[in-house]
Amino acid sequence: MDKARVGIIGATGYAGAELLRLILGHPKAEIAGISSVSFKGMEISEVYPMYKTYCDMVLINQEDVIAKSDVIFAALPHGLSQEIAELCDRENKVFIDIGADFRLKDENDYIEWYGGEYRNKGLHEKAVYGLPEFFRSEIRGKKLIANPGCYTTAVPLALFPAIKNGLIELNGIVADCKSGVTGAGRAPTQTNHFPELNENFYAYKIASHRHTPEIEQTLSSLSGESVKITFVPHLLPINRGILATCYARLKEGVTEADVKAAYEEAYKNERFVRLCREGKTPTVKAVRYTNFCDIGLTVDERTGTLIAVSAIDNMVKGAAGQAIQNMNLCLGFDETDGLLTVPPIN
Amino acid sequence: MDKARVGIIGATGYAGAELLRLILGHPKAEIAGISSVSFKGMEISEVYPMYKTYCDMVLINQEDVIAKSDVIFAALPHGLSQEIAELCDRENKVFIDIGADFRLKDENDYIEWYGGEYRNKGLHEKAVYGLPEFFRSEIRGKKLIANPGCYTTAVPLALFPAIKNGLIELNGIVADCKSGVTGAGRAPTQTNHFPELNENFYAYKIASHRHTPEIEQTLSSLSGESVKITFVPHLLPINRGILATCYARLKEGVTEADVKAAYEEAYKNERFVRLCREGKTPTVKAVRYTNFCDIGLTVDERTGTLIAVSAIDNMVKGAAGQAIQNMNLCLGFDETDGLLTVPPIN
Amino acid sequence: MDKARVGIIGATGYAGAELLRLILGHPKAEIAGISSVSFKGMEISEVYPMYKTYCDMVLINQEDVIAKSDVIFAALPHGLSQEIAELCDRENKVFIDIGADFRLKDENDYIEWYGGEYRNKGLHEKAVYGLPEFFRSEIRGKKLIANPGCYTTAVPLALFPAIKNGLIELNGIVADCKSGVTGAGRAPTQTNHFPELNENFYAYKIASHRHTPEIEQTLSSLSGESVKITFVPHLLPINRGILATCYARLKEGVTEADVKAAYEEAYKNERFVRLCREGKTPTVKAVRYTNFCDIGLTVDERTGTLIAVSAIDNMVKGAAGQAIQNMNLCLGFDETDGLLTVPPIN
Amino acid sequence: MDKARVGIIGATGYAGAELLRLILGHPKAEIAGISSVSFKGMEISEVYPMYKTYCDMVLINQEDVIAKSDVIFAALPHGLSQEIAELCDRENKVFIDIGADFRLKDENDYIEWYGGEYRNKGLHEKAVYGLPEFFRSEIRGKKLIANPGCYTTAVPLALFPAIKNGLIELNGIVADCKSGVTGAGRAPTQTNHFPELNENFYAYKIASHRHTPEIEQTLSSLSGESVKITFVPHLLPINRGILATCYARLKEGVTEADVKAAYEEAYKNERFVRLCREGKTPTVKAVRYTNFCDIGLTVDERTGTLIAVSAIDNMVKGAAGQAIQNMNLCLGFDETDGLLTVPPIN
Repeated sequence: MDKARVGIIGATGYAGAELLRLILGHPKAEIAGISSVSFKGMEISEVYPMYKTYCDMVLINQEDVIAKSDVIFAALPHGLSQEIAELCDRENKVFIDIGADFRLKDENDYIEWYGGEYRNKGLHEKAVYGLPEFFRSEIRGKKLIANPGCYTTAVPLALFPAIKNGLIELNGIVADCKSGVTGAGRAPTQTNHFPELNENFYAYKIASHRHTPEIEQTLSSLSGESVKITFVPHLLPINRGILATCYARLKEGVTEADVKAAYEEAYKNERFVRLCREGKTPTVKAVRYTNFCDIGLTVDERTGTLIAVSAIDNMVKGAAGQAIQNMNLCLGFDETDGLLTVPPIN
Repeated sequence: MDKARVGIIGATGYAGAELLRLILGHPKAEIAGISSVSFKGMEISEVYPMYKTYCDMVLINQEDVIAKSDVIFAALPHGLSQEIAELCDRENKVFIDIGADFRLKDENDYIEWYGGEYRNKGLHEKAVYGLPEFFRSEIRGKKLIANPGCYTTAVPLALFPAIKNGLIELNGIVADCKSGVTGAGRAPTQTNHFPELNENFYAYKIASHRHTPEIEQTLSSLSGESVKITFVPHLLPINRGILATCYARLKEGVTEADVKAAYEEAYKNERFVRLCREGKTPTVKAVRYTNFCDIGLTVDERTGTLIAVSAIDNMVKGAAGQAIQNMNLCLGFDETDGLLTVPPIN
Repeated sequence: MDKARVGIIGATGYAGAELLRLILGHPKAEIAGISSVSFKGMEISEVYPMYKTYCDMVLINQEDVIAKSDVIFAALPHGLSQEIAELCDRENKVFIDIGADFRLKDENDYIEWYGGEYRNKGLHEKAVYGLPEFFRSEIRGKKLIANPGCYTTAVPLALFPAIKNGLIELNGIVADCKSGVTGAGRAPTQTNHFPELNENFYAYKIASHRHTPEIEQTLSSLSGESVKITFVPHLLPINRGILATCYARLKEGVTEADVKAAYEEAYKNERFVRLCREGKTPTVKAVRYTNFCDIGLTVDERTGTLIAVSAIDNMVKGAAGQAIQNMNLCLGFDETDGLLTVPPIN
Repeated sequence: MDKARVGIIGATGYAGAELLRLILGHPKAEIAGISSVSFKGMEISEVYPMYKTYCDMVLINQEDVIAKSDVIFAALPHGLSQEIAELCDRENKVFIDIGADFRLKDENDYIEWYGGEYRNKGLHEKAVYGLPEFFRSEIRGKKLIANPGCYTTAVPLALFPAIKNGLIELNGIVADCKSGVTGAGRAPTQTNHFPELNENFYAYKIASHRHTPEIEQTLSSLSGESVKITFVPHLLPINRGILATCYARLKEGVTEADVKAAYEEAYKNERFVRLCREGKTPTVKAVRYTNFCDIGLTVDERTGTLIAVSAIDNMVKGAAGQAIQNMNLCLGFDETDGLLTVPPIN
């Protein structure tokens, strides 16, 4: 079988470069074209010398990338994907959007949190939300996928079995999340200048981060009720990883054994979800460079609280890896193809 | 006036070395003696070359330190301070314990969480809990001070005005805390070996950390009711700093303005508490090497939640600095003496 | 063809765990057994949770590992490999020693720098020094390989073409090297305790590091003359990577063009050596998690000095990756098998 | 005595902010005014929240700062200080330039390495090069001081006694230097974006850094001969600190004892130079936040090489601290005033 011809739009951003890494290692896909506005005409290995001899392809413009490809990934700031989606739709190509333009079902949420409008409502109806552990059957064979954000992957995976089995109260959920700095992208900023972030740590966009409505959309969809959460992200002085520490009140009478049984049942067939061994907790290092979500569970009997902690690599399961997982489902490949490279220990 | 003669027992641990730094810069105190079990007979500047020419004193044993001093600080693992306290009590010396032996009022809590017993109950009744912002008048002139732990300083400072003014529900409080690694001490461990902690982040002792009953003791004391909290500490790959992100349900009708007014009123005369400017949040870097506690407040109206974030330097306001603040109160000095050295920006 | 059955002795050390990572991704080899003294009886994924579901094999003793394997790697402190080598020799198995026991040709050097003796001189004569870029033809098909150390790979690769082509004076060479801390191994120490190494940097074992005679042995072998160098290693507060900045006096009349031509010619067929683009210099990040050695060259015309900088990942080209490269040569595989996994950009 | 009224031009850059820290803690000086182009009109504590309550002064323009001050420090990019120097000269004020405009005696060097010209040659003749350990008597009482760069402080301090006593050959000296990233300033850049520099290390401006002629000027001045060195700086993923590893050929017959005696004699009265204890080497951590230069010496007898390692804090002895030391000399204060704050151990 010929390999799928893959194009990456925005290949020099961190998510784009991670997509490139994963496609270069994928047994059934190959790079057909890569684009960049800032570095057009340069070889990707001039921008990222680690790629030298692995991939020295020249960066071209996005139209040419689309023309050369069967599957297109876009890793762009929000607002720039709708036009690409229309073009791919017309030409019947698979489009997987790493950005936020197709994630929110309710246009009002998009208007409120992102400030833009939906240009082509029909396309938004076609778009499938690409969190495979919850929506696998909807993703299979589709051609327009909204790849979830990073926090919006970590938090629902931490809470799903408790919600599905009715173990927790749906109001009062707190998601205290901590992310490595690659999540903020490649463009230099004052706050992410090395001397400023190094040896620092703080919360940002407290109760006002754009991932809030997206997390709530997923939790509401899973529970069948409208769920509101308190979501506070923090910035870690490390490159990769998200740790989501989620708090929810347990319903009367629910035990730690109930909780663990629910999670084991819910995730027993999920190749990319690992429940921690007894007495162990998730670490961002254990999932670094992988598509795994590790989950640890504690019941605080003193206060009747479930503490569910999940860890993912924000660049992999939180972005490029999940996008490959979605591509595999869209194209009928094995869901794990290209996603099981053994990670380093440090 | 002669300077107070200060002794430090356990001077080569991180908290002891930080006490040394602060006393060396104190206008009304001087080092009389320093002890160490592991490094006895060596100069402190052999252990810590940064101190060379500032202090090249030889480490001696703890009995000799006590004999030479009017004020004794002990920075020792729990269980080792009770004997020192007895000796200081007999000789009418000021004893400020950085360890945990005198912090818990209820011996049953100590037995449950630390596994030891109180050897001399009378001494425990004499001991004052040294969190000056709450218990200043009790500390003044006293001779036996239980210096609080790090988390147990950060969390109550974040919540006190809300509790005192009845703005929040007392059940369901969550304290999600993150600490730099100096809090774990100087002894090398596998988890704090550089290659393991570097680029890592995780929760530990989830809902089972020994600071839990101590935080609850303070919050209960401030509120007059029994308060139970959910407390989850995390380990940051940085040297210093604690960020406490505290969540509580606001009582019906309480507004952001109410919250801010309460905090401003409560802390307006506190030299070591700073409320963040509008739109800013606390960072661990802004309090590094200082005795300050910075506090930021957000009301999440979507869920009726108060999010109070505090930042301290775990080695200063969370240990040695607060101990100096207590010494200043015990001896009738200005509370800020030796504690306002200007910190570096990076 | 059946896969080669590989055993790793000392699999829980950093080099051993890296070997495991690489073998798990190797197309023609599979893990037959792994040993550990400290963690015997545990699953490797209990020690390293990142390996969970990739490899949950139980750690056994070294005799059983040897019995199950055709190719044995040992990643042990020096002095422990000679017995294993004898056993492998008797049973006609391939043995690749990551340790130092077989690297030095002259027993007197071993006695002087390591303090031990050669137990079986015949074996030491059989041993081949496994730096494939220089000794490829000797390694092919052999069964006892002394895998070089990390600095001892980086420095000779930086200097070889200049030496081979007689471009530099052989006396007065300086190798100023900087290494990430994984090179110091997994055992916690005071100096590598996170709070001590973080934000620190210093030289160590100045002009007295054990890699000195090994580097000199290689350079002397390449030049046909006795070469002595000044070698100073430094410790970097990062996990992985070595940067070797090497200084040598250029012979009269040698130009930058001569130098670059010599390096291009020498390395044009080497898959794992990359010369930097014009105006670029090697970085440890560009070789992280790869088997590459990147080299940059500068001629300081003001002083007549060649500055040759090389970068490798101390755990890969400096240890486990080079060991796999040697295995590939020993077994007749393609030299790059299992060694071209695409690295992440950050 | 009234305190000296100090103005800082460019107070929001890293060197300016460090000057502010040191002046705020100086017993004989006080801040009269601070300027910033980018943040004019804001309080300095809005830019640097760590300064809140220590200094909430509003940033003004540079003319007003000069008008309010007796002593002016400028921490500006090169080319911007000459005009300020003229103004201060006319008004008979002390001007200490942290920038490079007055460092090079030979205008041709300035033209070659910086690309600018000297506007007022008379002023350049008045300027004194402010490295107090070498030029103390010239600095005393003067009004125009060229404060040295960071590398240009570390390297000459490492080599001076060997040069002065004729212990080393003056050709072939190598200075392999490594600097923390604050040396590159506050403006965000791609290379110093956290995810790029974190876990990275490399050489930059190899044999072409602008500090080269300045180091050579000092070494030539100390030796009375024209000295050329090979200078290679590297960038460390830490905030502060420079380690200079200097290599020089020892003259025939010079012993380690000769070397050590020369250094002890040369620096025995220097409060800010510390020679390492026997068997110890300098670390950047031991000088962090201090004005000290720590020096360690090794003689490599195998190759006849002196290895002199020096460590300074690039922001203190390499910039703001040395500037205060110069101010103290200019104004007749004790040279250590404001410069002996005890540093933290981590």
